[in-house]
Amino acid sequence: MIEGIGAAAGVAIGKAFVLPSWEWDLPDQKMDAVDLAKEFERLYEGIRTSKSEIQFIKDEFREMVGPEESSIFDAHLAILEDPEFMNEIRGIIERQYKAAEVAVKEAIDHFVTMFDLLDDEYMKERAIDIKDVGNRLLKHLLGAPEVTLPKDTQPYILVAKELSPSQSAHLNPSYVLGIVTMNGGKTSHSAIMARALGIPLVSGLESNLNLPVQTGDMMVVDGDLGKVYVNPEKTVTDHYKILRDEQRRRKEQLQVLASVDAVTKDGTTLRLAANISSIKELEAALKHGAQGVGLFRTEFLYMDRKSAPDEEEQYEVYRLIAEKAGNHSVVIRTLDIGGDKPLDYLQLPEEENPFLGYRAIRISLDWKELFKTQLTAILRASATGNIKVMYPMISSVEEVRQADALLKEAMADLDARGLAYNPNIQRGIMIEVPAAAMIADLLAAETDFFSIGTNDLVQYVLAVDRMNEQIAHMYHPYHPAVLRMLRMTAQAAHQAGIDVSVCGEMAGDERSVPLWLELGIHQLSMSPQSLLRVKHRVLNTTASEATTVAQVCFGMSTGAAIEDKLTAANVSCTPAGPGRQ
Amino acid sequence: MIEGIGAAAGVAIGKAFVLPSWEWDLPDQKMDAVDLAKEFERLYEGIRTSKSEIQFIKDEFREMVGPEESSIFDAHLAILEDPEFMNEIRGIIERQYKAAEVAVKEAIDHFVTMFDLLDDEYMKERAIDIKDVGNRLLKHLLGAPEVTLPKDTQPYILVAKELSPSQSAHLNPSYVLGIVTMNGGKTSHSAIMARALGIPLVSGLESNLNLPVQTGDMMVVDGDLGKVYVNPEKTVTDHYKILRDEQRRRKEQLQVLASVDAVTKDGTTLRLAANISSIKELEAALKHGAQGVGLFRTEFLYMDRKSAPDEEEQYEVYRLIAEKAGNHSVVIRTLDIGGDKPLDYLQLPEEENPFLGYRAIRISLDWKELFKTQLTAILRASATGNIKVMYPMISSVEEVRQADALLKEAMADLDARGLAYNPNIQRGIMIEVPAAAMIADLLAAETDFFSIGTNDLVQYVLAVDRMNEQIAHMYHPYHPAVLRMLRMTAQAAHQAGIDVSVCGEMAGDERSVPLWLELGIHQLSMSPQSLLRVKHRVLNTTASEATTVAQVCFGMSTGAAIEDKLTAANVSCTPAGPGRQ
Repeated sequence: MIEGIGAAAGVAIGKAFVLPSWEWDLPDQKMDAVDLAKEFERLYEGIRTSKSEIQFIKDEFREMVGPEESSIFDAHLAILEDPEFMNEIRGIIERQYKAAEVAVKEAIDHFVTMFDLLDDEYMKERAIDIKDVGNRLLKHLLGAPEVTLPKDTQPYILVAKELSPSQSAHLNPSYVLGIVTMNGGKTSHSAIMARALGIPLVSGLESNLNLPVQTGDMMVVDGDLGKVYVNPEKTVTDHYKILRDEQRRRKEQLQVLASVDAVTKDGTTLRLAANISSIKELEAALKHGAQGVGLFRTEFLYMDRKSAPDEEEQYEVYRLIAEKAGNHSVVIRTLDIGGDKPLDYLQLPEEENPFLGYRAIRISLDWKELFKTQLTAILRASATGNIKVMYPMISSVEEVRQADALLKEAMADLDARGLAYNPNIQRGIMIEVPAAAMIADLLAAETDFFSIGTNDLVQYVLAVDRMNEQIAHMYHPYHPAVLRMLRMTAQAAHQAGIDVSVCGEMAGDERSVPLWLELGIHQLSMSPQSLLRVKHRVLNTTASEATTVAQVCFGMSTGAAIEDKLTAANVSCTPAGPGRQ
Repeated sequence: MIEGIGAAAGVAIGKAFVLPSWEWDLPDQKMDAVDLAKEFERLYEGIRTSKSEIQFIKDEFREMVGPEESSIFDAHLAILEDPEFMNEIRGIIERQYKAAEVAVKEAIDHFVTMFDLLDDEYMKERAIDIKDVGNRLLKHLLGAPEVTLPKDTQPYILVAKELSPSQSAHLNPSYVLGIVTMNGGKTSHSAIMARALGIPLVSGLESNLNLPVQTGDMMVVDGDLGKVYVNPEKTVTDHYKILRDEQRRRKEQLQVLASVDAVTKDGTTLRLAANISSIKELEAALKHGAQGVGLFRTEFLYMDRKSAPDEEEQYEVYRLIAEKAGNHSVVIRTLDIGGDKPLDYLQLPEEENPFLGYRAIRISLDWKELFKTQLTAILRASATGNIKVMYPMISSVEEVRQADALLKEAMADLDARGLAYNPNIQRGIMIEVPAAAMIADLLAAETDFFSIGTNDLVQYVLAVDRMNEQIAHMYHPYHPAVLRMLRMTAQAAHQAGIDVSVCGEMAGDERSVPLWLELGIHQLSMSPQSLLRVKHRVLNTTASEATTVAQVCFGMSTGAAIEDKLTAANVSCTPAGPGRQ
């Protein structure tokens, strides 16, 4: 048995497939360029093919995991257009008469060494990206076969030194039962992908680089506890088979709940909606019983293109989403983007602290035409379906008023053009900046609904960037300060008689259900994968049980104590709950 | 009259001195290296001299402006040790047989061009630094005279394209009456220095690059309104002479207040203390009537060195500060540093969002020995003076308990060593993370005093990095959310019967005085330059007037309205107050 990091939950049992590493050796013969023009032609052809491959992988990845994570491939595409990288390659061909593949290999080595030397996390990541892109380019120049996962074969457990972003994008849950990687942790691309696909993953076995495993070996992967077994004894396999089958059975049981409403045993209803970024995701959400869309992220419409989407294009998407959602409501969040996710057609500055920077509504209120185009498209779609509009990252009353003024302008324009819209469209705001929670009473007077974005709220309240590994353990959604902000916000909404929902990751954590019931939250919006788990929790509690649990939590002084209390209440409520501690 | 940006307040009238630009041309003759060994010797000698010059400038700058701003010179020293930069220079000498100065010039040009090409703010700043350092090195290699400011001459108004960090460090307020620069804004090094020294500065005249001014021309610089006059008519000069003399007179009047207590007309007392980073700053503070030290930043003890200061060294500093402060109390804040200000001997990671990262108490609780050494030194000094200890960036009850446990360990060690300390030393925390304000009641039960750090608090509550020019206008200390957090914190302190002070920049803004009086703040701690202005405001109001003003503010829904109200109250209270709107 070997211990690592449990990076994606679940148990897998099967035969190992050990992936060769994704790097190319140059043939032995001397590879000088015979004909410079020909070498350049080969180079550009390789770049073209690489680009279209990356674009394809990117689209796949986005469908599976979402636009935020797929943006890594934008960086990859950018490398193939990077003047420094390309000049280096061209220079080696031109001045040293070397073959294109030699030039590419030397350029990769040059930049990887340079970035590694800088001893800077960001630069190290860039080195990994350059390696991934460079190896793809090399593959085409050498005509080497791609290192791919076996296809149309028996299901297997994938064992690799590390999975490149490109390889992660190709994981097929029908064949890959489980994954073991030497490098990586919970936040690597392979981990994100594995979790999205429900494939158990154990990573970070670095201290066991000589893992004694060969293709064909029998393996057990325990993604809950971070354990890997190679050719284990029968007792171990038997034990894990029982566990695996139980997990499967529970999954099937949950699926039955899709068509049931989320009502507590004593009759309190919670509306469970989905966070989505695409029509495809909405389909998955509806299969899991989503009651509409609590958060439609419009960013993906704006990304990976040379100019912003026009009104017509946006209108089509919004209209289609609303149509698919049927009678359920769809909350469209206006563009929520920042300097850490640049768009070609917005000149966004690089920032020292992008999370405290120029983003979301701050950008929209500056780029008025861009914003008005989006508002106009949303308004037009509101004539055809149950659509609401929501402004992200609001921190003051003035911002809401400015956004509303532009919404009014968009309405006036539509009037002039004789186009239909819902003049009473509901206007809501994200409560994710601490200031918004602090003045929730003032903001409630200006808006029709609140949606609490717990991910950012927690981050700002605690001053903890959760992507920062050094302090990720301090990112504590159950910190008493967070609970108090949630309470302030809910109370302000109730006092004003407006709807309040939660759309951050806390909404998808079934342990939080007692808090939502106690705070009178009307709707939870979450990733489609979480809907059934949360519904199960709602169905198995009562409002009065929830009050008892929540009130104990509100009286506690540390996040750890509160989390323990919620976890214990969850276990006692659902003795057969999914996942193991 | 030419308009620019008023970057440092005040009016100056005098003759212009136009500074030549800080760049060197190479002599015309061909400069090949005759003797490689000799060129290297010259190069290393130049580097040595440059380093000691930079170190000297840095020390000067720190004394004037503080350790944070002077850290720019650490970057400069690092460039002279940067392997890439030095390899480039060495390579040109070695492989191309060029003279050291030619190699340096080519290396500067190479890196400046490269960094400029990257189109990244951070890299652009690095380009400016490389130019500054490279020109210094060139100067020594060429034996060229330094471009310095005139010395021992008549006072003058300094006109320059831009002031390099090195030049800013040399500003002498006895000679430099005012400054005009083509480039730069309110946050440039020259602006920071000018404000610290009280020299009026107008910058950002870029659109007027052909400013028709020559050394000897008569000039008026209006740093309040951002106006510059060259050879103005007598009426203009006369008008400004009256203004300037009034400003001087007011400054002298304020100085009289140094020995007076800060008591309102109806008898409410506010304690006014100073934020300092060095003994020298404490001296200045005491001259301005500081009642002790509300914030001693210990960072400077840790910076610019190869290893952390030992217990003895720290003890000496803390003891001296307490001695100088006499009966007044001295609040020593433990190390408050992060990844954006690296220390050689702490391996701090580069971070995507350093303000939401690994810093201050988060580092101290990880680097236990480092922290305990500081606590031990503070404890020992507490035996000799009125010293309190304060933990920065607290966001949870657990952090206070962990820090206190280490303080207890340090006490036990001192007991074992038979050394004296104050066993009842007051332990306080900074309230600067929103979470701390939200759970101020829980934290008040664990500590002896609060000090509200408004700079960071405002930044986190509003999610606005105030160093980010794009959104700096959103950094609003008078936002109603901030006022509510201040009120929550003050109320929790009063309920627990502990002391509460304010030590951010808001404390030094005299317009805030009504808020502090209404909230029952016990102490304000500010930069020594602000003490007399704030005291003047306190002396000219009453507690009941303050209540009236503050209550109106607490009922307002926007920061702009609140700021207007406080500004108006300030003007009506002190018709002859310093500064102009």
